[in-house]
Amino acid sequence: MPYEFKMTRRVEFAETDMAGIMHFSNFFRFMESAEHAFFRSLGYSVHEAGEGLVLGWPRVQASCDYRAPLRFEEEVEIHLLVERVGNRSISYQCVFRKRAGDGGAGALVARGQLKVVCAGMKPGGGGMASCAIPDEMREAIQVAPPEVLAENRLAHGT
Amino acid sequence: MPYEFKMTRRVEFAETDMAGIMHFSNFFRFMESAEHAFFRSLGYSVHEAGEGLVLGWPRVQASCDYRAPLRFEEEVEIHLLVERVGNRSISYQCVFRKRAGDGGAGALVARGQLKVVCAGMKPGGGGMASCAIPDEMREAIQVAPPEVLAENRLAHGT
Amino acid sequence: MPYEFKMTRRVEFAETDMAGIMHFSNFFRFMESAEHAFFRSLGYSVHEAGEGLVLGWPRVQASCDYRAPLRFEEEVEIHLLVERVGNRSISYQCVFRKRAGDGGAGALVARGQLKVVCAGMKPGGGGMASCAIPDEMREAIQVAPPEVLAENRLAHGT
Amino acid sequence: MPYEFKMTRRVEFAETDMAGIMHFSNFFRFMESAEHAFFRSLGYSVHEAGEGLVLGWPRVQASCDYRAPLRFEEEVEIHLLVERVGNRSISYQCVFRKRAGDGGAGALVARGQLKVVCAGMKPGGGGMASCAIPDEMREAIQVAPPEVLAENRLAHGT
Repeated sequence: MPYEFKMTRRVEFAETDMAGIMHFSNFFRFMESAEHAFFRSLGYSVHEAGEGLVLGWPRVQASCDYRAPLRFEEEVEIHLLVERVGNRSISYQCVFRKRAGDGGAGALVARGQLKVVCAGMKPGGGGMASCAIPDEMREAIQVAPPEVLAENRLAHGT
Repeated sequence: MPYEFKMTRRVEFAETDMAGIMHFSNFFRFMESAEHAFFRSLGYSVHEAGEGLVLGWPRVQASCDYRAPLRFEEEVEIHLLVERVGNRSISYQCVFRKRAGDGGAGALVARGQLKVVCAGMKPGGGGMASCAIPDEMREAIQVAPPEVLAENRLAHGT
Repeated sequence: MPYEFKMTRRVEFAETDMAGIMHFSNFFRFMESAEHAFFRSLGYSVHEAGEGLVLGWPRVQASCDYRAPLRFEEEVEIHLLVERVGNRSISYQCVFRKRAGDGGAGALVARGQLKVVCAGMKPGGGGMASCAIPDEMREAIQVAPPEVLAENRLAHGT
Repeated sequence: MPYEFKMTRRVEFAETDMAGIMHFSNFFRFMESAEHAFFRSLGYSVHEAGEGLVLGWPRVQASCDYRAPLRFEEEVEIHLLVERVGNRSISYQCVFRKRAGDGGAGALVARGQLKVVCAGMKPGGGGMASCAIPDEMREAIQVAPPEVLAENRLAHGT
């Protein structure tokens, strides 16, 4: 579905900290990994948008609520949902659930949000400038149905 | 002052990404570094709270608004403020400003928030359990005056 | 085969640096990921060795020769080989090759080595102490045949 | 002295792993930080070499021997020494020592080596190509006296 993406990650040793759990900053890296895998699932790389155009997606806002720790070698399902597509920005919801023994998604671990803006690379390596999302890309990306977004928001309370 | 802490960091090469700027997840690591330096300034380690008590501070919420990128070797001032001290939790505000040429704080780069809960280590390495903040620590940590918090919140708009 | 393990990783955005390539320190994290996946393939977790014994594997030596850069979203095959099993230590060879278009291993990217020692967790969280590798584990881990080690050493020159 | 640089770092929480010590890959990041600080001490940024020339220093070899763990909040002195300056490459020795109570360098923690090559940025963001170290830079960087290198090599055995 062009409004969501699910991927599974296993927590690595280097991602843990001395409290024995995954360091909280790595949840943001996992969100970004899911975002990039979502783009690849649509046929795009985050850094090549077709026609030689080089786009980047600077982050303007990132947040995460932590409900349960993740430990070394645990598998977590990262469920990315498109919450809003604007003229120049995309907002994502992200739900982290531990993988249950049967391979399905289990207990809620964390919920995050990410807001990114579209930026084009200036020729000659001259930095990034905010720009409109190319039409072709905006058409490829859908907003998740309200009930799917709500369901995952409700999951928040469990 | 027992309600704030300022520290300066220089962005390292390993903290940048291929977009040429500091990776957004590292702002959360910088916030945590300021939090720990704040604790040290009060005479505590985040992991030893006196009398053999081992405390940890699991994160329950983390967020960041990004206003401008940080580049390799740039110096950033991290200003941590205590926003609220509860029975079992502390909330921090964090303002990131580029260091100006004169050594003072310059342009706003980002603003973050961090909510942490107090947790005691169970004997025998049996994990963490939420607990009340020890009285001695709660007395050592003050909430920033409303006008200081507001000033930094106003800074948000600049 | 209990003397080798192959895994594939895709380079993530947060693993790149401002030079546009994977940061050199991350090759060491990839080696460790392959080492841990190798242990899982034998039925062990690096941190639980059966019978309630908690083992760790502190690193005593790590090195890497870099031949070609890895870029964002490129897939790399990590080939771990057991080079030597001592009474208390294991040495690994590690070959990194770019994944070719046909899914096979392509051009050489880097070659690394890792020497780790076996250490048991002292009761009560009192740190690690070097110890002999448990017999059951040592029997499960074989040294790669000399010609396989040599072949991958020769690959070094390509 | 243009053949060495000393800096002190305090181990941060995010740099530890579940074994309660600094993750071994971070020693390589510390070496690089010392290398960059050394360049700044000579008036250079690793990424700007004067006259608009953009240079980079891709790593061709990195190694580290670990003697003792570093723990959270411990301070470590990183002592970088220039071991060899070639036409296109520089080799560094790096000695890590715990900071003693009196502020001096204490027990040996690790010893590393790093070999880097000079590379110029092709115009238009077209990647890096190996090149000779600019004369001005080569003159600014000296090789450490043999006795200083030997002394730190001897330290290896302690």
